[in-house]
Amino acid sequence: MLSKAVVKYIKSLQIKKYRKQHKAFVVEGAKSVQELLHADFELEHLFITNGFQKQYSESFPPGLAFEVVSEEELVKAGSFSSNNAALAVARMRLLPPLHIQKNDLIIALDDVRDPGNLGTIIRIADWYGIQQIVCSETCADFYNSKVISATMGSFTRVNVQYLNLAEWLQQHTKNYKIYGASLAGESLHEMTLQPEGIVVLGNEANGICPEVAAQVNQFIKIPAFGAAESLNVATATAIIIDNFRRNS
Amino acid sequence: MLSKAVVKYIKSLQIKKYRKQHKAFVVEGAKSVQELLHADFELEHLFITNGFQKQYSESFPPGLAFEVVSEEELVKAGSFSSNNAALAVARMRLLPPLHIQKNDLIIALDDVRDPGNLGTIIRIADWYGIQQIVCSETCADFYNSKVISATMGSFTRVNVQYLNLAEWLQQHTKNYKIYGASLAGESLHEMTLQPEGIVVLGNEANGICPEVAAQVNQFIKIPAFGAAESLNVATATAIIIDNFRRNS
Repeated sequence: MLSKAVVKYIKSLQIKKYRKQHKAFVVEGAKSVQELLHADFELEHLFITNGFQKQYSESFPPGLAFEVVSEEELVKAGSFSSNNAALAVARMRLLPPLHIQKNDLIIALDDVRDPGNLGTIIRIADWYGIQQIVCSETCADFYNSKVISATMGSFTRVNVQYLNLAEWLQQHTKNYKIYGASLAGESLHEMTLQPEGIVVLGNEANGICPEVAAQVNQFIKIPAFGAAESLNVATATAIIIDNFRRNS
Repeated sequence: MLSKAVVKYIKSLQIKKYRKQHKAFVVEGAKSVQELLHADFELEHLFITNGFQKQYSESFPPGLAFEVVSEEELVKAGSFSSNNAALAVARMRLLPPLHIQKNDLIIALDDVRDPGNLGTIIRIADWYGIQQIVCSETCADFYNSKVISATMGSFTRVNVQYLNLAEWLQQHTKNYKIYGASLAGESLHEMTLQPEGIVVLGNEANGICPEVAAQVNQFIKIPAFGAAESLNVATATAIIIDNFRRNS
Protein backbone atom coordinates (compact mmCIF):
# COMPACT_ATOMS: atom_id res chain seq x y z
CA MET A 1 0.00 0.00 0.00
CA LEU A 2 1.14 3.52 -0.72
CA SER A 3 1.59 5.46 2.51
CA LYS A 4 0.24 8.99 2.83
CA ALA A 5 3.80 10.32 3.02
CA VAL A 6 4.78 8.62 -0.23
CA VAL A 7 1.64 9.86 -2.01
CA LYS A 8 2.44 13.36 -0.79
CA TYR A 9 6.03 13.04 -2.00
CA ILE A 10 4.95 11.81 -5.44
CA LYS A 11 2.40 14.62 -5.72
CA SER A 12 5.06 17.18 -4.81
CA LEU A 13 7.10 16.05 -7.83
CA GLN A 14 4.42 17.52 -10.11
CA ILE A 15 6.04 20.84 -9.22
CA LYS A 16 9.40 21.77 -10.73
CA LYS A 17 10.77 23.30 -7.53
CA TYR A 18 10.34 20.01 -5.67
CA ARG A 19 11.69 17.96 -8.55
CA LYS A 20 14.85 20.09 -8.45
CA GLN A 21 15.06 19.85 -4.67
CA HIS A 22 14.69 16.06 -4.61
CA LYS A 23 16.42 15.44 -7.96
CA ALA A 24 13.64 13.00 -8.76
CA PHE A 25 10.71 12.70 -11.20
CA VAL A 26 7.63 10.58 -11.87
CA VAL A 27 7.09 8.11 -14.72
CA GLU A 28 3.61 6.67 -15.33
CA GLY A 29 2.03 4.10 -17.62
CA ALA A 30 3.04 0.71 -19.01
CA LYS A 31 5.18 1.78 -21.95
CA SER A 32 7.10 4.56 -20.20
CA VAL A 33 7.82 2.53 -17.06
CA GLN A 34 8.93 -0.50 -19.10
CA GLU A 35 11.42 1.65 -20.98
CA LEU A 36 12.57 3.22 -17.72
CA LEU A 37 13.29 -0.21 -16.22
CA HIS A 38 15.70 -0.98 -19.04
CA ALA A 39 17.41 2.38 -19.09
CA ASP A 40 20.19 3.83 -17.01
CA PHE A 41 18.12 5.53 -14.28
CA GLU A 42 18.21 4.87 -10.57
CA LEU A 43 14.78 4.07 -9.12
CA GLU A 44 13.48 5.41 -5.82
CA HIS A 45 10.07 3.74 -5.99
CA LEU A 46 8.30 1.34 -8.29
CA PHE A 47 4.61 0.62 -7.85
CA ILE A 48 2.96 -1.84 -10.20
CA THR A 49 -0.37 -3.59 -10.54
CA ASN A 50 -0.85 -7.32 -10.45
CA GLY A 51 -1.60 -7.25 -14.17
CA PHE A 52 1.62 -5.42 -15.02
CA GLN A 53 3.62 -7.85 -12.90
CA LYS A 54 2.08 -10.87 -14.64
CA GLN A 55 2.66 -9.43 -18.08
CA TYR A 56 6.19 -8.09 -17.74
CA SER A 57 7.96 -9.61 -14.74
CA GLU A 58 9.91 -12.05 -16.92
CA SER A 59 11.72 -9.13 -18.51
CA PHE A 60 12.40 -7.29 -15.21
CA PRO A 61 16.08 -6.60 -14.51
CA PRO A 62 17.46 -8.96 -11.82
CA GLY A 63 16.95 -7.79 -8.25
CA LEU A 64 14.33 -5.18 -9.16
CA ALA A 65 12.51 -3.91 -6.06
CA PHE A 66 8.82 -3.10 -6.44
CA GLU A 67 5.53 -3.06 -4.61
CA VAL A 68 2.22 -4.34 -5.97
CA VAL A 69 -0.64 -1.86 -5.53
CA SER A 70 -4.13 -1.27 -6.92
CA GLU A 71 -5.08 0.81 -9.95
CA GLU A 72 -6.90 3.19 -7.59
CA GLU A 73 -3.69 3.80 -5.66
CA LEU A 74 -1.77 4.56 -8.86
CA VAL A 75 -4.41 7.07 -9.90
CA LYS A 76 -4.45 8.64 -6.44
CA ALA A 77 -0.68 9.18 -6.43
CA GLY A 78 -0.16 10.02 -10.07
CA SER A 79 -1.44 12.44 -12.70
CA PHE A 80 -3.24 9.95 -15.01
CA SER A 81 -7.02 9.62 -14.88
CA SER A 82 -6.55 5.86 -15.25
CA ASN A 83 -3.48 3.69 -14.85
CA ASN A 84 -3.70 -0.10 -14.84
CA ALA A 85 0.05 -0.59 -15.08
CA ALA A 86 2.75 1.20 -13.13
CA LEU A 87 4.18 4.35 -11.57
CA ALA A 88 7.85 4.91 -10.80
CA VAL A 89 9.89 7.60 -9.13
CA ALA A 90 13.33 7.85 -10.69
CA ARG A 91 16.41 9.94 -9.90
CA MET A 92 17.39 12.56 -12.42
CA ARG A 93 20.67 11.63 -14.01
CA LEU A 94 23.60 13.91 -14.68
CA LEU A 95 23.32 15.02 -18.26
CA PRO A 96 26.37 14.17 -20.31
CA PRO A 97 27.89 17.36 -21.75
CA LEU A 98 26.43 18.29 -25.09
CA HIS A 99 28.40 16.30 -27.61
CA ILE A 100 27.61 17.12 -31.19
CA GLN A 101 29.44 16.21 -34.33
CA LYS A 102 29.92 18.00 -37.56
CA ASN A 103 27.31 16.09 -39.55
CA ASP A 104 24.63 15.83 -36.87
CA LEU A 105 21.05 16.92 -37.30
CA ILE A 106 20.00 18.81 -34.15
CA ILE A 107 16.62 20.18 -33.04
CA ALA A 108 16.64 23.54 -31.23
CA LEU A 109 13.49 24.78 -29.49
CA ASP A 110 12.86 28.41 -28.67
CA ASP A 111 10.29 28.93 -25.89
CA VAL A 112 8.21 25.80 -26.57
CA ARG A 113 6.12 25.91 -23.41
CA ASP A 114 3.56 23.18 -23.79
CA PRO A 115 4.76 19.97 -22.10
CA GLY A 116 2.77 17.75 -24.47
CA ASN A 117 4.46 19.39 -27.45
CA LEU A 118 7.95 18.98 -25.96
CA GLY A 119 7.29 15.32 -25.14
CA THR A 120 5.96 14.63 -28.63
CA ILE A 121 9.01 16.35 -30.15
CA ILE A 122 11.32 14.13 -28.06
CA ARG A 123 9.47 11.06 -29.41
CA ILE A 124 9.81 12.38 -32.97
CA ALA A 125 13.54 13.01 -32.45
CA ASP A 126 13.95 9.44 -31.23
CA TRP A 127 12.06 8.07 -34.25
CA TYR A 128 14.32 9.97 -36.63
CA GLY A 129 17.54 9.09 -34.80
CA ILE A 130 18.21 12.55 -33.40
CA GLN A 131 19.95 12.33 -30.03
CA GLN A 132 20.24 16.00 -29.20
CA ILE A 133 17.60 18.61 -28.52
CA VAL A 134 18.68 22.05 -27.41
CA CYS A 135 16.08 24.16 -25.55
CA SER A 136 15.88 27.78 -24.52
CA GLU A 137 15.53 28.10 -20.77
CA THR A 138 11.86 29.04 -21.12
CA CYS A 139 10.85 25.73 -22.71
CA ALA A 140 8.77 23.19 -20.75
CA ASP A 141 10.76 21.19 -18.20
CA PHE A 142 12.02 17.81 -19.45
CA TYR A 143 11.05 16.15 -16.14
CA ASN A 144 7.47 17.46 -16.14
CA SER A 145 5.29 14.35 -15.99
CA LYS A 146 3.32 15.45 -19.08
CA VAL A 147 6.56 15.71 -21.04
CA ILE A 148 7.72 12.30 -19.84
CA SER A 149 4.44 10.58 -20.69
CA ALA A 150 4.16 12.17 -24.15
CA THR A 151 7.62 10.80 -25.03
CA MET A 152 6.32 7.21 -24.68
CA GLY A 153 9.70 6.10 -23.36
CA SER A 154 11.88 8.18 -25.67
CA PHE A 155 12.97 10.32 -22.69
CA THR A 156 15.44 7.50 -21.95
CA ARG A 157 17.29 8.02 -25.24
CA VAL A 158 17.17 11.69 -26.19
CA ASN A 159 19.46 14.24 -24.55
CA VAL A 160 17.74 17.57 -23.84
CA GLN A 161 19.87 20.55 -22.82
CA TYR A 162 18.63 23.93 -21.57
CA LEU A 163 20.75 26.94 -22.40
CA ASN A 164 20.77 30.48 -23.73
CA LEU A 165 19.70 29.60 -27.25
CA ALA A 166 20.72 32.80 -29.07
CA GLU A 167 24.22 32.65 -27.56
CA TRP A 168 24.61 28.94 -28.22
CA LEU A 169 23.56 29.31 -31.85
CA GLN A 170 26.02 32.17 -32.28
CA GLN A 171 28.81 29.89 -31.06
CA HIS A 172 27.82 27.23 -33.61
CA THR A 173 27.12 29.34 -36.61
CA LYS A 174 30.56 28.65 -38.11
CA ASN A 175 30.22 24.88 -38.18
CA TYR A 176 26.50 24.37 -38.68
CA LYS A 177 23.90 25.67 -41.04
CA ILE A 178 21.04 27.02 -38.94
CA TYR A 179 17.51 26.58 -40.29
CA GLY A 180 14.48 28.29 -38.77
CA ALA A 181 10.83 27.33 -39.26
CA SER A 182 8.82 30.34 -40.41
CA LEU A 183 5.64 30.92 -42.39
CA ALA A 184 7.73 33.24 -44.57
CA GLY A 185 10.50 30.74 -45.32
CA GLU A 186 11.40 28.77 -48.43
CA SER A 187 9.17 25.76 -49.15
CA LEU A 188 10.60 22.46 -47.91
CA HIS A 189 9.21 20.78 -51.02
CA GLU A 190 11.37 22.95 -53.27
CA MET A 191 14.60 22.15 -51.46
CA THR A 192 16.99 19.21 -51.44
CA LEU A 193 18.02 18.99 -47.83
CA GLN A 194 20.93 17.15 -46.31
CA PRO A 195 20.25 15.61 -42.88
CA GLU A 196 22.64 17.88 -41.02
CA GLY A 197 22.53 21.23 -39.32
CA ILE A 198 20.46 22.84 -36.59
CA VAL A 199 16.70 23.19 -37.05
CA VAL A 200 15.09 25.87 -34.87
CA LEU A 201 11.37 25.83 -34.02
CA GLY A 202 9.74 28.63 -32.11
CA ASN A 203 7.03 29.34 -29.58
CA GLU A 204 3.51 28.01 -30.22
CA ALA A 205 1.99 31.48 -30.58
CA ASN A 206 4.85 33.81 -31.44
CA GLY A 207 7.32 31.78 -33.48
CA ILE A 208 11.07 32.33 -33.14
CA CYS A 209 12.11 35.39 -31.10
CA PRO A 210 14.19 38.12 -32.80
CA GLU A 211 17.48 37.31 -30.98
CA VAL A 212 17.30 33.68 -32.07
CA ALA A 213 16.01 34.54 -35.55
CA ALA A 214 19.10 36.73 -36.01
CA GLN A 215 21.24 33.55 -35.94
CA VAL A 216 19.22 31.70 -38.60
CA ASN A 217 20.89 31.23 -41.98
CA GLN A 218 17.85 29.94 -43.82
CA PHE A 219 14.15 30.13 -43.05
CA ILE A 220 12.07 27.19 -44.18
CA LYS A 221 8.33 26.64 -44.35
CA ILE A 222 5.96 23.75 -44.72
CA PRO A 223 3.94 24.50 -47.85
CA ALA A 224 0.23 25.05 -47.19
CA PHE A 225 -2.55 23.86 -49.49
CA GLY A 226 -5.59 24.84 -47.45
CA ALA A 227 -6.86 27.49 -45.05
CA ALA A 228 -5.41 26.60 -41.62
CA GLU A 229 -3.16 29.44 -40.46
CA SER A 230 -0.60 27.31 -38.70
CA LEU A 231 0.33 23.85 -37.47
CA ASN A 232 1.00 22.64 -33.96
CA VAL A 233 4.76 22.94 -33.23
CA ALA A 234 5.17 19.19 -32.71
CA THR A 235 3.38 18.48 -35.99
CA ALA A 236 5.62 21.00 -37.73
CA THR A 237 8.75 19.44 -36.24
CA ALA A 238 7.73 16.02 -37.52
CA ILE A 239 7.11 17.21 -41.06
CA ILE A 240 10.33 19.23 -41.19
CA ILE A 241 12.54 16.46 -39.83
CA ASP A 242 10.95 13.96 -42.21
CA ASN A 243 11.92 16.24 -45.09
CA PHE A 244 15.51 16.44 -43.78
CA ARG A 245 15.67 12.65 -43.56
CA ARG A 246 14.46 11.97 -47.10
CA ASN A 247 18.01 11.92 -48.41
CA SER A 248 19.59 9.99 -45.55
CA MET B 1 -23.36 37.41 -15.88
CA LEU B 2 -23.74 33.74 -16.60
CA SER B 3 -26.77 32.34 -14.80
CA LYS B 4 -26.54 29.04 -12.95
CA ALA B 5 -28.87 27.48 -15.48
CA VAL B 6 -26.69 28.52 -18.40
CA VAL B 7 -23.51 27.28 -16.69
CA LYS B 8 -25.25 23.97 -16.06
CA TYR B 9 -26.35 23.78 -19.69
CA ILE B 10 -22.85 24.54 -20.99
CA LYS B 11 -21.35 21.95 -18.61
CA SER B 12 -23.86 19.35 -19.82
CA LEU B 13 -22.52 19.79 -23.38
CA GLN B 14 -19.25 18.20 -22.26
CA ILE B 15 -21.18 14.94 -22.54
CA LYS B 16 -22.00 13.49 -25.94
CA LYS B 17 -25.51 12.38 -24.96
CA TYR B 18 -26.49 15.95 -24.11
CA ARG B 19 -24.79 17.38 -27.18
CA LYS B 20 -26.90 15.06 -29.31
CA GLN B 21 -30.04 15.87 -27.37
CA HIS B 22 -29.56 19.65 -27.65
CA LYS B 23 -27.83 19.54 -31.06
CA ALA B 24 -25.35 22.06 -29.67
CA PHE B 25 -21.66 22.23 -28.76
CA VAL B 26 -19.14 24.48 -27.02
CA VAL B 27 -16.31 26.48 -28.60
CA GLU B 28 -13.66 28.09 -26.39
CA GLY B 29 -10.67 30.36 -26.84
CA ALA B 30 -9.86 33.38 -29.01
CA LYS B 31 -8.85 31.67 -32.23
CA SER B 32 -11.62 29.06 -32.32
CA VAL B 33 -14.39 31.52 -31.43
CA GLN B 34 -13.15 34.05 -33.98
CA GLU B 35 -13.27 31.42 -36.71
CA LEU B 36 -16.71 30.32 -35.53
CA LEU B 37 -18.07 33.88 -35.82
CA HIS B 38 -17.14 33.96 -39.49
CA ALA B 39 -18.38 30.49 -40.35
CA ASP B 40 -21.81 29.17 -41.16
CA PHE B 41 -22.92 28.11 -37.65
CA GLU B 42 -25.94 29.37 -35.73
CA LEU B 43 -25.03 30.70 -32.26
CA GLU B 44 -27.02 30.02 -29.12
CA HIS B 45 -24.76 31.94 -26.76
CA LEU B 46 -21.66 34.07 -27.03
CA PHE B 47 -19.79 35.17 -23.93
CA ILE B 48 -16.74 37.35 -24.34
CA THR B 49 -14.36 39.30 -22.15
CA ASN B 50 -13.85 43.01 -22.34
CA GLY B 51 -10.42 42.39 -23.84
CA PHE B 52 -11.78 40.17 -26.61
CA GLN B 53 -14.46 42.73 -27.41
CA LYS B 54 -11.91 45.55 -27.65
CA GLN B 55 -9.58 43.52 -29.84
CA TYR B 56 -12.05 41.98 -32.27
CA SER B 57 -15.38 43.80 -32.23
CA GLU B 58 -14.56 45.68 -35.44
CA SER B 59 -14.58 42.40 -37.33
CA PHE B 60 -17.78 41.07 -35.70
CA PRO B 61 -20.57 40.18 -38.13
CA PRO B 62 -23.35 42.81 -38.11
CA GLY B 63 -26.03 42.30 -35.47
CA LEU B 64 -23.98 39.83 -33.45
CA ALA B 65 -25.50 39.22 -30.01
CA PHE B 66 -23.10 38.70 -27.13
CA GLU B 67 -22.65 39.24 -23.43
CA VAL B 68 -19.50 40.55 -21.75
CA VAL B 69 -18.38 38.43 -18.79
CA SER B 70 -15.26 37.94 -16.67
CA GLU B 71 -12.43 35.48 -17.28
CA GLU B 72 -13.47 33.67 -14.09
CA GLU B 73 -16.95 33.10 -15.46
CA LEU B 74 -15.57 31.68 -18.72
CA VAL B 75 -13.36 29.27 -16.77
CA LYS B 76 -16.26 28.29 -14.52
CA ALA B 77 -18.52 27.43 -17.45
CA GLY B 78 -15.97 25.96 -19.82
CA SER B 79 -13.29 23.29 -19.88
CA PHE B 80 -10.19 25.49 -20.14
CA SER B 81 -8.06 26.16 -17.09
CA SER B 82 -7.70 29.76 -18.29
CA ASN B 83 -9.65 31.71 -20.90
CA ASN B 84 -9.23 35.45 -21.34
CA ALA B 85 -11.18 35.58 -24.57
CA ALA B 86 -14.49 33.89 -25.34
CA LEU B 87 -16.84 30.94 -25.10
CA ALA B 88 -19.66 30.20 -27.51
CA VAL B 89 -22.42 27.64 -27.75
CA ALA B 90 -23.21 26.84 -31.37
CA ARG B 91 -25.81 24.66 -33.05
CA MET B 92 -24.56 21.58 -34.84
CA ARG B 93 -25.14 21.96 -38.54
CA LEU B 94 -26.51 19.38 -40.90
CA LEU B 95 -23.56 17.72 -42.54
CA PRO B 96 -23.64 17.95 -46.30
CA PRO B 97 -23.65 14.48 -47.83
CA LEU B 98 -20.15 13.13 -48.38
CA HIS B 99 -19.13 14.49 -51.74
CA ILE B 100 -15.85 13.17 -53.00
CA GLN B 101 -14.32 13.40 -56.41
CA LYS B 102 -12.15 11.07 -58.37
CA ASN B 103 -8.85 12.82 -57.71
CA ASP B 104 -9.42 13.75 -54.08
CA LEU B 105 -7.07 12.91 -51.26
CA ILE B 106 -9.14 11.67 -48.30
CA ILE B 107 -8.16 10.80 -44.72
CA ALA B 108 -9.90 7.79 -43.14
CA LEU B 109 -9.55 7.14 -39.41
CA ASP B 110 -10.14 3.75 -37.84
CA ASP B 111 -10.91 3.92 -34.11
CA VAL B 112 -8.87 7.07 -33.34
CA ARG B 113 -10.22 7.66 -29.84
CA ASP B 114 -8.16 10.49 -28.45
CA PRO B 115 -9.96 13.83 -28.97
CA GLY B 116 -6.69 15.77 -29.10
CA ASN B 117 -5.44 13.53 -31.90
CA LEU B 118 -8.65 13.88 -33.92
CA GLY B 119 -8.63 17.66 -33.51
CA THR B 120 -4.97 17.89 -34.55
CA ILE B 121 -5.68 15.70 -37.60
CA ILE B 122 -8.54 18.03 -38.62
CA ARG B 123 -6.11 20.97 -38.41
CA ILE B 124 -3.55 19.06 -40.50
CA ALA B 125 -6.21 18.20 -43.10
CA ASP B 126 -7.15 21.88 -43.31
CA TRP B 127 -3.48 22.89 -43.75
CA TYR B 128 -3.06 20.44 -46.62
CA GLY B 129 -6.37 21.33 -48.30
CA ILE B 130 -8.17 18.09 -47.48
CA GLN B 131 -11.89 18.74 -46.97
CA GLN B 132 -13.04 15.23 -46.13
CA ILE B 133 -12.24 13.00 -43.19
CA VAL B 134 -14.05 9.71 -42.86
CA CYS B 135 -14.19 8.16 -39.36
CA SER B 136 -15.20 4.79 -38.01
CA GLU B 137 -18.06 5.13 -35.54
CA THR B 138 -15.68 4.46 -32.64
CA CYS B 139 -13.53 7.54 -33.27
CA ALA B 140 -13.68 10.52 -30.90
CA ASP B 141 -16.74 12.75 -31.37
CA PHE B 142 -16.20 15.75 -33.66
CA TYR B 143 -18.17 18.00 -31.27
CA ASN B 144 -16.16 17.03 -28.17
CA SER B 145 -14.73 20.29 -26.84
CA LYS B 146 -11.17 18.88 -26.83
CA VAL B 147 -11.53 18.02 -30.53
CA ILE B 148 -12.90 21.47 -31.33
CA SER B 149 -10.14 23.29 -29.47
CA ALA B 150 -7.31 21.19 -30.96
CA THR B 151 -8.54 22.10 -34.47
CA MET B 152 -7.75 25.81 -33.80
CA GLY B 153 -10.71 26.82 -35.95
CA SER B 154 -10.31 24.20 -38.68
CA PHE B 155 -13.54 22.51 -37.51
CA THR B 156 -15.34 25.18 -39.54
CA ARG B 157 -13.80 23.98 -42.82
CA VAL B 158 -13.29 20.21 -42.67
CA ASN B 159 -16.17 17.78 -43.15
CA VAL B 160 -16.00 14.78 -40.81
CA GLN B 161 -18.32 11.83 -41.45
CA TYR B 162 -18.88 8.84 -39.18
CA LEU B 163 -19.71 5.54 -40.86
CA ASN B 164 -18.94 1.85 -41.05
CA LEU B 165 -15.40 2.23 -42.33
CA ALA B 166 -14.80 -1.30 -43.66
CA GLU B 167 -18.06 -1.21 -45.64
CA TRP B 168 -17.46 2.29 -46.94
CA LEU B 169 -13.95 1.43 -48.10
CA GLN B 170 -15.27 -1.66 -49.86
CA GLN B 171 -17.71 0.54 -51.78
CA HIS B 172 -14.87 2.82 -52.89
CA THR B 173 -12.21 0.29 -53.70
CA LYS B 174 -12.97 0.44 -57.42
CA ASN B 175 -12.40 4.17 -57.81
CA TYR B 176 -9.77 4.89 -55.19
CA LYS B 177 -6.45 3.46 -54.24
CA ILE B 178 -6.59 2.72 -50.52
CA TYR B 179 -3.39 3.25 -48.52
CA GLY B 180 -2.96 2.06 -44.95
CA ALA B 181 -0.35 3.24 -42.44
CA SER B 182 1.51 0.28 -41.00
CA LEU B 183 4.92 -0.35 -39.46
CA ALA B 184 5.25 -3.18 -42.01
CA GLY B 185 4.43 -1.07 -45.07
CA GLU B 186 6.57 0.28 -47.90
CA SER B 187 8.72 3.30 -47.02
CA LEU B 188 7.16 6.62 -48.01
CA HIS B 189 10.61 7.88 -48.93
CA GLU B 190 10.97 5.19 -51.59
CA MET B 191 7.69 6.00 -53.31
CA THR B 192 6.51 8.68 -55.69
CA LEU B 193 3.00 9.41 -54.50
CA GLN B 194 0.23 11.24 -56.28
CA PRO B 195 -1.99 13.37 -54.02
CA GLU B 196 -5.08 11.23 -54.52
CA GLY B 197 -6.67 8.21 -52.90
CA ILE B 198 -7.78 7.27 -49.41
CA VAL B 199 -5.22 7.17 -46.59
CA VAL B 200 -6.25 5.03 -43.61
CA LEU B 201 -4.75 5.53 -40.13
CA GLY B 202 -5.55 3.23 -37.26
CA ASN B 203 -6.06 3.17 -33.53
CA GLU B 204 -3.35 4.70 -31.29
CA ALA B 205 -2.46 1.35 -29.69
CA ASN B 206 -3.65 -1.33 -32.09
CA GLY B 207 -3.29 0.12 -35.57
CA ILE B 208 -5.81 -0.68 -38.31
CA CYS B 209 -8.33 -3.43 -37.46
CA PRO B 210 -8.41 -6.58 -39.66
CA GLU B 211 -11.74 -5.76 -41.40
CA VAL B 212 -10.45 -2.36 -42.46
CA ALA B 213 -6.97 -3.67 -43.29
CA ALA B 214 -8.60 -6.17 -45.67
CA GLN B 215 -9.64 -3.22 -47.87
CA VAL B 216 -6.18 -1.66 -48.07
CA ASN B 217 -4.37 -1.90 -51.42
CA GLN B 218 -1.01 -0.67 -50.24
CA PHE B 219 0.52 -0.42 -46.81
CA ILE B 220 2.89 2.48 -46.27
CA LYS B 221 5.28 3.29 -43.46
CA ILE B 222 7.21 6.28 -42.24
CA PRO B 223 10.85 5.19 -42.28
CA ALA B 224 12.46 5.07 -38.84
CA PHE B 225 16.05 6.07 -38.12
CA GLY B 226 16.10 5.69 -34.34
CA ALA B 227 14.69 3.61 -31.52
CA ALA B 228 11.15 4.92 -30.88
CA GLU B 229 8.65 2.15 -31.56
CA SER B 230 5.91 4.32 -32.94
CA LEU B 231 4.69 7.84 -33.56
CA ASN B 232 1.57 9.56 -32.28
CA VAL B 233 -1.26 9.07 -34.84
CA ALA B 234 -1.61 12.81 -35.49
CA THR B 235 2.15 13.11 -36.05
CA ALA B 236 2.02 10.15 -38.44
CA THR B 237 -0.90 11.67 -40.35
CA ALA B 238 1.02 14.92 -40.82
CA ILE B 239 4.14 13.21 -42.16
CA ILE B 240 2.18 10.93 -44.50
CA ILE B 241 0.01 13.69 -45.95
CA ASP B 242 3.08 15.89 -46.45
CA ASN B 243 4.63 13.08 -48.49
CA PHE B 244 1.46 12.81 -50.58
CA ARG B 245 1.49 16.55 -51.21
CA ARG B 246 5.11 16.73 -52.38
CA ASN B 247 4.07 16.25 -55.99
CA SER B 248 1.00 18.48 -55.94
